[in-house]
Amino acid sequence: MRILLVGAGGVGGAFAAIAARRDFFEAIVVGDHDVAKAERAAAVDARFSAVQVDASDAGSVAALCAEHRITHVMNAVDPVFNMSIFDGALAAGADYLDMAMSLSRPHPEAPYERTGVKLGDEQFAVADDWAAAGRLALVGIGVEPGLSDVFARYAADHLFSEIDELGTRDGANLVVTDNDGNEVFAPSFSMWTTIEECLNPPVVWQDGAWHTTAPFSEPEVFDFPEGIGPVECVNVEHEEVLLMPRWIDCRRATFKYGLGEEFITILKVLHTLGLDRTEKVRVKGVEVSPRDVVAAVLPDPATVGPRMRGKTCAGLWVTGTGKDGQARSTYLYHVVDNEWTMAEYGHQCVVWQTAVNPVVALELLATGVWTGVGVLGPEAFDAVPFLDLLAEHGAPWGQREMASSTLG
Amino acid sequence: MRILLVGAGGVGGAFAAIAARRDFFEAIVVGDHDVAKAERAAAVDARFSAVQVDASDAGSVAALCAEHRITHVMNAVDPVFNMSIFDGALAAGADYLDMAMSLSRPHPEAPYERTGVKLGDEQFAVADDWAAAGRLALVGIGVEPGLSDVFARYAADHLFSEIDELGTRDGANLVVTDNDGNEVFAPSFSMWTTIEECLNPPVVWQDGAWHTTAPFSEPEVFDFPEGIGPVECVNVEHEEVLLMPRWIDCRRATFKYGLGEEFITILKVLHTLGLDRTEKVRVKGVEVSPRDVVAAVLPDPATVGPRMRGKTCAGLWVTGTGKDGQARSTYLYHVVDNEWTMAEYGHQCVVWQTAVNPVVALELLATGVWTGVGVLGPEAFDAVPFLDLLAEHGAPWGQREMASSTLG
Repeated sequence: MRILLVGAGGVGGAFAAIAARRDFFEAIVVGDHDVAKAERAAAVDARFSAVQVDASDAGSVAALCAEHRITHVMNAVDPVFNMSIFDGALAAGADYLDMAMSLSRPHPEAPYERTGVKLGDEQFAVADDWAAAGRLALVGIGVEPGLSDVFARYAADHLFSEIDELGTRDGANLVVTDNDGNEVFAPSFSMWTTIEECLNPPVVWQDGAWHTTAPFSEPEVFDFPEGIGPVECVNVEHEEVLLMPRWIDCRRATFKYGLGEEFITILKVLHTLGLDRTEKVRVKGVEVSPRDVVAAVLPDPATVGPRMRGKTCAGLWVTGTGKDGQARSTYLYHVVDNEWTMAEYGHQCVVWQTAVNPVVALELLATGVWTGVGVLGPEAFDAVPFLDLLAEHGAPWGQREMASSTLG
Repeated sequence: MRILLVGAGGVGGAFAAIAARRDFFEAIVVGDHDVAKAERAAAVDARFSAVQVDASDAGSVAALCAEHRITHVMNAVDPVFNMSIFDGALAAGADYLDMAMSLSRPHPEAPYERTGVKLGDEQFAVADDWAAAGRLALVGIGVEPGLSDVFARYAADHLFSEIDELGTRDGANLVVTDNDGNEVFAPSFSMWTTIEECLNPPVVWQDGAWHTTAPFSEPEVFDFPEGIGPVECVNVEHEEVLLMPRWIDCRRATFKYGLGEEFITILKVLHTLGLDRTEKVRVKGVEVSPRDVVAAVLPDPATVGPRMRGKTCAGLWVTGTGKDGQARSTYLYHVVDNEWTMAEYGHQCVVWQTAVNPVVALELLATGVWTGVGVLGPEAFDAVPFLDLLAEHGAPWGQREMASSTLG
């Protein structure tokens, strides 16, 4: 296996550090528009090399694949570049993996009721081309989407005879402090992407169809495990809701993000003021995108690791009927402590938790445990070998039976 | 009287429109860095002309004064330019008026307890120079500071024998709608200045000394007159607190601004994110000040008038002992309806209410009713002729006796 890793940012850097400890691949070529960044990520191991890449140009991606005899393209950049990397991989005859799917566009008339172009629609539209070429595009194989989707397959195969709701729930108790030890506001993930996710109309799968709601809808306090505790969660547009129902029978699929009250207020204010907008505005002789300015004034998520403490939890709350015919409510989850990822890998927990999953998936593909062609989500594959191999990386998953048999 | 009006923005434009109806002056030269803007403001009357001016350069201001035989410089730009205009006027031998005083700088060690450089300190520091030259700098003669200070003098002369607190209270029920009639967030005053005022440490005069507090301190719901109703008010740094105790005996002086809960939340979020910062940040190859970006994404306060409705109220809540020896609590106020200012003057109510006061003051100086030399606040002059002349402009002041004799 020869991998082209596109993107040497927070997640790409963590991917390189995690993959360097495994022997399933022959070479990883790290590509970034900033070649110095690619070189830093590639410094982990002699099997790594660094190149410059234009992620917005499918031809540039395909040419790199040919030049380096790439078998798998690993996309670790902002999803705005998804389609060019995805198209470039197919053109070059390589398999493809990403951690977020092609972008959505709201319904022009009823954005908060009906779906427009959904997450992943552009990728699924060419699934037949991938299948005909005998190539695999494994989409959404980070932690969420990714591990959450693996949990869904595990629940369907081993825990439930009938599923009512597949409810992804994400929460954390991470705190970032400044040099004086005071708490500061510093998102642990790309602020640009967080705004995109949280202000787009959330999508819900219900009784055989997708619909959308207003941002921040259906708030719910979810009690996260391993000391994280209760966090206010709201509906957010996310890939799981589009992926899970394609392979797993369920009455309802949701994604709720534990933003917490402060973050919800911040996002609402940014939207009220128009600071979430991506179109450039003219400011004293220069042109900038307000959303880029918001991202620029905040600490870089890739650098906050050493000043962060706490844990992050990704998981799936499944309700329905267990294999024994009784009502069942189970939370399958993966908690990572920032102290551990920093000590063990030198990467903060949120990017580490995202990056470990495609490393596991690539190893399963390299060893032939997972096989497939076309455009497939993680739930199209057997969950057990994935969960077993994940545990080898030092951060095992967990399972909690819930008192209530219905979602809140 | 020959006036140089520096600044043809919202307040400058309204000043020109109001002054054009009076005959106390011979000429008004409107200066702006954007000469087209100056020309638009000067189009109201044949006594007006337009010039280009660099408000940051005292020499440029002084040269214009000499060229146009200016007797009074009317400063209507952001207070960041105060000192150059103030110095330029004195150098040219002209009198000077402004509506906001020279800027403050927080105390370096205890910003929320002790004052550093206070509002107006730089101007009062050279008061002797103005007095020696026989020239007058009338500082803070907008609506707040300005009319509020006139109210303080009126209360001391005619209503109270002893004053406990001079509490300026500002509130409004203004709403701005977009073209579809939906309410939008659109400050009626410069967002840059509002951030400056609201995030600086508020200053309070208490028992013979000034001290500061944390932003948004001592929240209080004040019931504003003429249908505006209750609005949440908080301490804000403002000139009245620095001006009133210099001329009027009082135990305490405060300024509370009726920001309302939404605006307070917005300002807190901007501060949390660092979007209130004025130092430039690098954003994808260009450099911008985050606060300038915030101001740029919002509607221009000078243009929201036609889409705004409601009233704004400026006033002074005075408590103490009345002339009759009884406890007294009186709110002296000035309410302006946006519908009226738009119909009558074509300017929105907040800028109109700010601009009418220096027009009144200049007329009192032109007619010799007000005289003085040095650096003086509005409370250094007799309030009665001011309040009488203000009423001639169509928006009279009001007085409300309050049920409670103590401030909340």
